[in-house]
Amino acid sequence: MNRFLDLADFSREQVLDLLALAQSLQDHPQPHALVGKILGLVFFNPSLRTLASFQVGMSRLGGDSFVITPGQGTWQLETRLNAVMNGAAAEHVREGIPVLASYCDALGVRAFADGKNLQNDLNETLFGMIDRLCDKPLINMESAMNHPCQALADWRTMDELRIPKRAKFVLSWVYHPKMLPLAVPSATLHMAAMRGMEVVVARPEGFALPPEIMAKARLAAAASGGSVSETSDRVSALAGANVLYAKEWGSPQHYGDAEADGRLRADLVDWCVNERWFAGALPDAKLMHCLPVRRNVAVADEVLDGPRAVVKREAFNRLAVQMAVLHRMLS
Amino acid sequence: MNRFLDLADFSREQVLDLLALAQSLQDHPQPHALVGKILGLVFFNPSLRTLASFQVGMSRLGGDSFVITPGQGTWQLETRLNAVMNGAAAEHVREGIPVLASYCDALGVRAFADGKNLQNDLNETLFGMIDRLCDKPLINMESAMNHPCQALADWRTMDELRIPKRAKFVLSWVYHPKMLPLAVPSATLHMAAMRGMEVVVARPEGFALPPEIMAKARLAAAASGGSVSETSDRVSALAGANVLYAKEWGSPQHYGDAEADGRLRADLVDWCVNERWFAGALPDAKLMHCLPVRRNVAVADEVLDGPRAVVKREAFNRLAVQMAVLHRMLS
Amino acid sequence: MNRFLDLADFSREQVLDLLALAQSLQDHPQPHALVGKILGLVFFNPSLRTLASFQVGMSRLGGDSFVITPGQGTWQLETRLNAVMNGAAAEHVREGIPVLASYCDALGVRAFADGKNLQNDLNETLFGMIDRLCDKPLINMESAMNHPCQALADWRTMDELRIPKRAKFVLSWVYHPKMLPLAVPSATLHMAAMRGMEVVVARPEGFALPPEIMAKARLAAAASGGSVSETSDRVSALAGANVLYAKEWGSPQHYGDAEADGRLRADLVDWCVNERWFAGALPDAKLMHCLPVRRNVAVADEVLDGPRAVVKREAFNRLAVQMAVLHRMLS
Repeated sequence: MNRFLDLADFSREQVLDLLALAQSLQDHPQPHALVGKILGLVFFNPSLRTLASFQVGMSRLGGDSFVITPGQGTWQLETRLNAVMNGAAAEHVREGIPVLASYCDALGVRAFADGKNLQNDLNETLFGMIDRLCDKPLINMESAMNHPCQALADWRTMDELRIPKRAKFVLSWVYHPKMLPLAVPSATLHMAAMRGMEVVVARPEGFALPPEIMAKARLAAAASGGSVSETSDRVSALAGANVLYAKEWGSPQHYGDAEADGRLRADLVDWCVNERWFAGALPDAKLMHCLPVRRNVAVADEVLDGPRAVVKREAFNRLAVQMAVLHRMLS
Repeated sequence: MNRFLDLADFSREQVLDLLALAQSLQDHPQPHALVGKILGLVFFNPSLRTLASFQVGMSRLGGDSFVITPGQGTWQLETRLNAVMNGAAAEHVREGIPVLASYCDALGVRAFADGKNLQNDLNETLFGMIDRLCDKPLINMESAMNHPCQALADWRTMDELRIPKRAKFVLSWVYHPKMLPLAVPSATLHMAAMRGMEVVVARPEGFALPPEIMAKARLAAAASGGSVSETSDRVSALAGANVLYAKEWGSPQHYGDAEADGRLRADLVDWCVNERWFAGALPDAKLMHCLPVRRNVAVADEVLDGPRAVVKREAFNRLAVQMAVLHRMLS
Repeated sequence: MNRFLDLADFSREQVLDLLALAQSLQDHPQPHALVGKILGLVFFNPSLRTLASFQVGMSRLGGDSFVITPGQGTWQLETRLNAVMNGAAAEHVREGIPVLASYCDALGVRAFADGKNLQNDLNETLFGMIDRLCDKPLINMESAMNHPCQALADWRTMDELRIPKRAKFVLSWVYHPKMLPLAVPSATLHMAAMRGMEVVVARPEGFALPPEIMAKARLAAAASGGSVSETSDRVSALAGANVLYAKEWGSPQHYGDAEADGRLRADLVDWCVNERWFAGALPDAKLMHCLPVRRNVAVADEVLDGPRAVVKREAFNRLAVQMAVLHRMLS
């Protein structure tokens, strides 16, 4: 495996195979599998789980890693092609990425959406450039529209919880003071569809995911036998649900326009998950979230501290599945 | 050992045992003792010695580590219970700590005093929460009122220097432009009392340590055969002293009130240790300080650059004793 | 080897020997050479190549490393002797450096020029202090006037490209919005002279390198059979050139005076390397640069993206030669 950029690049069988490898590495640790291998980690954006779990994953497999955080101890990196670089950035990714790749055996890169032009971000303009610049194996640690490590960890979490393939999976928009990127909702939606689930996207008016994202998920559902629908009625969405996956995102209609997005979300503070949301769901319905989560803003304490919340297991599974990806890529 | 949070949690014999292990690991290195073990290091506050020595300690024992610095490359972490998280912090320690603990074999956490409410900080409200959230071995890398790694390193330093158990140990307040936390003075006072020393706290009026801290030290002194007293007369305090331990701290009377504290300390710039301070002390009296130290503000160059200063040995001993703690915890 | 501070501290034979070791370590990896060794890395200034390549170098040789970035997660470090430390810096290098050295087997330090007093920086006042404070092997990761790791990597790059010892090497000033330090131009100039090349420094009026720097290079040229000259006519400089080494630096005439330097460089924006610069050079003349490089400000895209540019190979060779230095120092 030379690239881990998008679950959609893999067949369902290949994904199941990776999940089996994750389980196998948990049952039968391979502390020498990646001896002598070095992973470079480049974070254009903040991280907690990703930063810790990739370093730990390499360690647990006998390898090593280093961390580069442009703008913090490292030069700010320019990403615009043909830029006349007389601003804050001292170096261009066209030099930075190949140089870092030359030092290591694989590179992980986190580069969030630019958040200005929806089409550019849907096209993964930045991550596509990084992809072309990297002649070593490359892992997407969250790009403009994708977060395959999170998606794979969530898939594993549902398998562990024995949530049926055909179960009802509700991806619901939840409130956040700022417009967050579309990466996790897009990746989650596609993952659940690819897993074969009955997927419902619940979101207020104005927060429908871009048609390209919905179409990609529908394609995955068609292949897996699942389904994808969307609604602004969260009560109907949650009726009979096995899983509520809460996620914050900005209005695609007002992409790059924080003010317009802010006006739209101002009235939506009640999109904070509490126990009442689960009234019509299955009794043991689960609450999933990729973290970080703003307590009592996106999800209430009563849910996060109760038995429904499986968010810490999702986070732990980041380590488990990433070890499988690293093993497949580097061993 | 599952927790290393406070020297007071251990008997004198257990402390001596740890110190013996530190010596043994120095004499007979065990470079494979912690192979496969990973230490997570979480720094809510700046560090130099702690940051370097814990990473080195794991390396020297064959293990590995990773560093998380909330707010620098990592989300800012909320610590208030029941907070409505619509501010700067994107994640709560209630998620962050258990998730990080799930990736590693032990966690070290530095979380300074909040500095607003003395009773909360005396109760270790924040570190207590972290303690309850962490289901792996946990090391206190400095909390609101404690710094057991520093205390243990200082104990070892005095043993190395053959400073008698019953020697006179003066913990003296020294000047600093800001109100610093009570963690090191509290831990140092308790350590010297537990070691069995004749401990005198010298501090200007208004800077007496909280009664709870003094009482804890007196309890330790009663058990060890030492003594604890305090005075604002630093000349009498230093008469016959073997050790002057210089430390800066804020006025407990004006806890959380930087302005009132500032007025109180404005006239105290002469509490900067110079050679004259040692006029009545034993000829070879030592100057100890946990570092970082502001030269010519807290301690004069002439003392830090002279033979009395053992501050670099104290710092080196951080590594020595922490390796013993890690070995006891993880091997 | 206990110090790697300046190529001038080594004979030509010793440098060739290090380069041979770099090649040997590439042909015959020694993944266990530095098992149990720890390198401390202290960055007073930003870095990308240095930060990544030293960590990777230690890993590839079986050793380990840690990173300290004063002011970012670590206390700001005071560097002025006899300072009354009532400002932002909480700790002095007089404590910080010996303490960090005590934890590890070798220390690498990056400490750029202060940029205020030319004579102080020419004297390496700060790095000299660090040198005296460090009782472990020490590597200069860029000081006020030197960058021996870069110089060695550039030498190796020219060897790999089979650029003759006697070839014409043009070090040319190029535009940058700010006054950058003299470390790389000084080290590069000396390296090319020591390699035995026909070295020409091309720079606008007002940007002549200090006489001390020129004299040091001329001394090296005299010993190696090379030559050193300078001119403000870049066309004549580049006539018949094998190598154009582009580098930004501040006016030594206006050292520490950003305003005067700014007036001088305001008219020099055409000192941005493009293909026309190579009109009179050898057909396969190479473009070298230490990186980071500001595209379309210092060097145009057309050159950096074309076959002349060997900047990424130079950066890769940082790893190769540093592994030789580490091996020589620690194995």
